[in-house]
Amino acid sequence: MTDAHNTSTGGARPLSFQSMILRLHQYWSDRGCLILQPYDMEMGAGTFHPATTLRALGPEPWNAAFVQPCRRPTDGRYGENPNRLQHYYQYQVILKPSPPDLQELYLGSLLAIGVDVTTHDIRFVEDDWESPTLGAWGLGWEVWCDGMEVTQFTYFQQMGGFDCKPVAGELTYGLERLAMYIQDVDNVYDLAFNDAGVSYGEVFLENERQMSTWNFEVADTDALFDAFRKHTAECENSLAAKLPIAAYEQAIKASHVFNLLQARGVISVAERQAYMGRVRDLAKGACAAQIEKMTPAWQARYPEWSL
Amino acid sequence: MTDAHNTSTGGARPLSFQSMILRLHQYWSDRGCLILQPYDMEMGAGTFHPATTLRALGPEPWNAAFVQPCRRPTDGRYGENPNRLQHYYQYQVILKPSPPDLQELYLGSLLAIGVDVTTHDIRFVEDDWESPTLGAWGLGWEVWCDGMEVTQFTYFQQMGGFDCKPVAGELTYGLERLAMYIQDVDNVYDLAFNDAGVSYGEVFLENERQMSTWNFEVADTDALFDAFRKHTAECENSLAAKLPIAAYEQAIKASHVFNLLQARGVISVAERQAYMGRVRDLAKGACAAQIEKMTPAWQARYPEWSL
Repeated sequence: MTDAHNTSTGGARPLSFQSMILRLHQYWSDRGCLILQPYDMEMGAGTFHPATTLRALGPEPWNAAFVQPCRRPTDGRYGENPNRLQHYYQYQVILKPSPPDLQELYLGSLLAIGVDVTTHDIRFVEDDWESPTLGAWGLGWEVWCDGMEVTQFTYFQQMGGFDCKPVAGELTYGLERLAMYIQDVDNVYDLAFNDAGVSYGEVFLENERQMSTWNFEVADTDALFDAFRKHTAECENSLAAKLPIAAYEQAIKASHVFNLLQARGVISVAERQAYMGRVRDLAKGACAAQIEKMTPAWQARYPEWSL
Repeated sequence: MTDAHNTSTGGARPLSFQSMILRLHQYWSDRGCLILQPYDMEMGAGTFHPATTLRALGPEPWNAAFVQPCRRPTDGRYGENPNRLQHYYQYQVILKPSPPDLQELYLGSLLAIGVDVTTHDIRFVEDDWESPTLGAWGLGWEVWCDGMEVTQFTYFQQMGGFDCKPVAGELTYGLERLAMYIQDVDNVYDLAFNDAGVSYGEVFLENERQMSTWNFEVADTDALFDAFRKHTAECENSLAAKLPIAAYEQAIKASHVFNLLQARGVISVAERQAYMGRVRDLAKGACAAQIEKMTPAWQARYPEWSL
């Protein structure tokens, strides 16, 4: 790769990891998005953030962008793999209703972080998306830039088993991968985190080593099985109290505990489907409760709306 | 309050909540800070973020800024109080070693978000800080702007019971309070979250209502007591495996569960001290493990350093 990477920033050095995030924030803020904070709960993907899941339901416009730390325990490699991490960041944009110029908006965001789309090979590869634990699916594309997947592009059709009306557009940028591309770096730990000389490895390498060990070898499995049961029960408890947000939080927690149990290797292939089905039921329950609770307010503002 | 608020932004309308955060990010990024993401775990204060607690230990320079969602269940008011929330945001800056011009740097940050310190009454009121659950304390000041507390200013002396060498300077901005001041708004839910017309209430009011109900009335207390025991045990399990980060995460979780138990009103005044002591022991254990694990690397780079 060459300097062509950075033509749009006038040949200056490429953006640091944190500057890239700040540019994306500014870009999406300038286009009317809420810039939200990551959710303070461990989760496997930015789509689990209530600002995506719960807000994808119903008729109200919702435009938001945020970073979400993602934890995928089974992806840990003890800090020894140059591009595989059990903790990494996604940049998530949700636009409801999905604007007709979503693709141009997305390409503009690449330009904003120094990727001149006129000199690079940008491909949209059809790849419909499904989340078996959220009861969600959408029509989608992977975006490849010079042969590297950098973004997922999805039009939500269903969330929690309910039709999305209107359809929301979701963009998910893999931030580390995008930064490696922009900085022309082969090892994630060598990424410039900021412009003051601190690398990604100085911030996260020790974390990857320790948490890989914990995820794979240390976490007490009896306690995790018990936590799964308790989060399930608390989700139902919260649904009985008609509190969709509280219920949904318990679904997030159950989902992460399930991911930890998988990393510990104590869930058989046969059991796996049953656990995922259990999490999906919690997420669906929370989405149903959200719709039930919010429908009067939604219909007051959007009389034509119905499920 | 008057337009004098906004002299530094040329009389333009005051910054939205999200723009204020982006300005602070840019300001501290320009001064060499890492701009980190919030930790994906429920906690009562930004100081609990491992980027503060664990990085305050040892000799290595560490300059970082980040937002942290804070959950203080007992502060919930069902969305009915104009400035009291069970979920709000802190902006946290940690500078190690503490720079001699920390106060000027701080005043510069106020200017960056539109508070002209030459036309306002800025006072530093001595207020030493102590965290009984982190085994931490510091020399500190509250910063009052025209009679409203907007920031805490602390020089850490101890963390997890260990001396901070060198001393780190910590700034904690109360973001909602600062935004209410800048926007001249009396009700937090009326804050402009962005410049596209979305209010803070549209993002968070429903959350405050539901989570206040859950915190005070619904959360199953037997499950919480059990979770406290399990996080305690898992912390010790992780300490035995010499994993300070994993152990510290369990201390964070135990601390939040304790806060939930308090909101549910099931911890007597007599028991309260014992629970806080238990959390402190976990935090201290994690800090001790961090020091033990990192000391060889620290001494290789800073031979003069010792505990």
